[in-house]
Amino acid sequence: MRIFIAGVDGYLGWALAQHLAGRGHEIAGADLFFRRNWVEEMGSWSATPIASMKDRLAAFRERHGKGLQFWEGDLRNYELVESIFKKFQPEGIVHLGECPSAPYSMIDVDHSVFVQTNNITTTFNLLYAMRDLRPSAHLVKLGTMGEYGTPDVDIPEGFFELDFRGRRARLPFPRSAGSWYHWSKVHGSNNIMFACKIWNLCASDIMQGVVFGTRIDGMEKDSRLLTRVDFDQSFGTVINRFCCQSVIGHPLTPFGKGRQRRGFLPLRDSVQCLTLVLENPAKAGEYRVFNQFEELYEVSDLALKVQRVAQKLGLDVEIQNLQNPRQEAEEHYYKADHKQLFDLGYRPATTVEAEVEIMIQDLVLHRDRIRAKQDVLIPDIRWDGHRNKVAFLRTAARAVA
Amino acid sequence: MRIFIAGVDGYLGWALAQHLAGRGHEIAGADLFFRRNWVEEMGSWSATPIASMKDRLAAFRERHGKGLQFWEGDLRNYELVESIFKKFQPEGIVHLGECPSAPYSMIDVDHSVFVQTNNITTTFNLLYAMRDLRPSAHLVKLGTMGEYGTPDVDIPEGFFELDFRGRRARLPFPRSAGSWYHWSKVHGSNNIMFACKIWNLCASDIMQGVVFGTRIDGMEKDSRLLTRVDFDQSFGTVINRFCCQSVIGHPLTPFGKGRQRRGFLPLRDSVQCLTLVLENPAKAGEYRVFNQFEELYEVSDLALKVQRVAQKLGLDVEIQNLQNPRQEAEEHYYKADHKQLFDLGYRPATTVEAEVEIMIQDLVLHRDRIRAKQDVLIPDIRWDGHRNKVAFLRTAARAVA
Repeated sequence: MRIFIAGVDGYLGWALAQHLAGRGHEIAGADLFFRRNWVEEMGSWSATPIASMKDRLAAFRERHGKGLQFWEGDLRNYELVESIFKKFQPEGIVHLGECPSAPYSMIDVDHSVFVQTNNITTTFNLLYAMRDLRPSAHLVKLGTMGEYGTPDVDIPEGFFELDFRGRRARLPFPRSAGSWYHWSKVHGSNNIMFACKIWNLCASDIMQGVVFGTRIDGMEKDSRLLTRVDFDQSFGTVINRFCCQSVIGHPLTPFGKGRQRRGFLPLRDSVQCLTLVLENPAKAGEYRVFNQFEELYEVSDLALKVQRVAQKLGLDVEIQNLQNPRQEAEEHYYKADHKQLFDLGYRPATTVEAEVEIMIQDLVLHRDRIRAKQDVLIPDIRWDGHRNKVAFLRTAARAVA
Repeated sequence: MRIFIAGVDGYLGWALAQHLAGRGHEIAGADLFFRRNWVEEMGSWSATPIASMKDRLAAFRERHGKGLQFWEGDLRNYELVESIFKKFQPEGIVHLGECPSAPYSMIDVDHSVFVQTNNITTTFNLLYAMRDLRPSAHLVKLGTMGEYGTPDVDIPEGFFELDFRGRRARLPFPRSAGSWYHWSKVHGSNNIMFACKIWNLCASDIMQGVVFGTRIDGMEKDSRLLTRVDFDQSFGTVINRFCCQSVIGHPLTPFGKGRQRRGFLPLRDSVQCLTLVLENPAKAGEYRVFNQFEELYEVSDLALKVQRVAQKLGLDVEIQNLQNPRQEAEEHYYKADHKQLFDLGYRPATTVEAEVEIMIQDLVLHRDRIRAKQDVLIPDIRWDGHRNKVAFLRTAARAVA
């Protein structure tokens, strides 16, 4: 299958491209290296040293025997998207060409506007190019479980049957996102749902849990194949940050009470799930929503898991909760369906502990890179608009153990 | 009360400014005359000749004894919004600074992107200026009943109690909008709801029905006070278009079967309702949603009402249904709450028939202006992306009488 990946230079994009090529698919991608710039703007870099796109492409060709067609450009430019679709004629399209960070979107008005308008514009460009050039191609759009927020009821996969005053309708499940970034994903989901309806396009919208991991199988063979691993407050996801903290002896830092419950999955499961969705496309006019995560965990429990694995590897780390820079429930009901991907054949590749063990072993090699930027481990972007570092809390997270 | 109107030069903005000034409020406004340009882009103009902003402001001062502070500028520019808020220090803010047209948003990718990013950016700029400069000011944002679409269940006012798998939560009612414009309003509603939550702002979000009317009381005293009345496919609302058609002997043109049911209200009720909301502001942190319409009507019934009033005034007009350029249900369940504004004191000023009679009498004076642009009365912007004039249908709309 010819698969185009918007945002192929990112954490997921670069891993997915390799996994799909390994399964025999023909891959193209586009990127303008925004993610590299945003992380630099945060004063950080990837814990794993990542190669230039030129070197990445050379390694990709060596490993897979065929190249990845790459366009360097801004996906907010419709003419670029049009020319890619004309040339490559994708059958599957994976939309990772969005800014994926909640804190980054909360910095100030410019960042809020940028994140939402960027994500809306790239999505529109893909939808219009599909309509006019590739109407039977299948769009896979990366959303987030964060679209739903933490409502006081169960979370279905996208839609629900509403019984209301004696009548019944199937409707999109109400979203209660927790940052301007998360709302941008809701806006995108709404737009894609509508495009499928009026233009008979087909799309799969992935409500993904929090991803963690340093690599997928095969990357270890060539350092140019490694994907990025961020640990700054904006682009580092929580388990990745905990693992980076553990290798330099920094305390692991859940926010607030640390009782936030979320869906999580390793990077290797994320690419497995996206591949399953791509290889089992939606039908014409169909807009499907998948909740994509392996299991629900509390952040403090994950800190304890990382601490235990680190200890086993000879690294002694504390857990010290931080003031919460976000506005979010720190203890709440949370139960979400995630059945459809398992029905398609998703089988978790590993356990959190096993994955964390690989991660810490990988990251120990890059200890100096993390230490050089360790200032970014304590967040200062607050949901109330102030920007100053949060303080450690006195209450120990161990209380939840 | 000091009230700032974003988009004060528009159909609603110019009427609302006068009504509020008549009630003793101090008014400021900003505009960059986008609406005038969009209508020109559609090949049309206002049926009523409208004065330049310079002349409007002079007439406003003469009539109300005090001026309207006006800023000519683009509300997508945060520095502009900031400087207005610093200077004027608004207590109430009415957000009409958005592109309000469904067909306009469906033209092509540039128009879709423009409508959504414009509406998101102006909303963000107002929210940030409120947070940083006027945190206790009350935002009134014009949304649309079109956010809800036509679900197969009753439509509450913004929120509902969801009983789901044995638990209960109060959640935003799911939206099912019918154009990129309508979705932009959903995006805005979501963003404003979230801003109220995290920044303790207060806002009232108006899900407004379709507005019709040529004027409010007082405008007839000075032609410079007249508001615009559009009849093109993008900016002319349906009853306004029917009235313009009737004065030049053009058939009234419901789309498709014409059984679409919607909420409607006259312009004088719209300004009455917005004033009630402004004078009864939300509390800090509160995000309220009002469904703002007088009553629900079927489009074909409205065509018959306009036809009867026209006949009474000596104008003989046919009703001839057109192919529907939109994708929408043409026969559907539709029942929507609209209790809260009546609770606040809203009393409809008139009947549809009485209002239409005033409208036709007003518009007869401008028959030549309408005739000069009558080509715009038949739409060519289609939801499927094609752009060519729709044809008349054979079936007579009278069948529904």
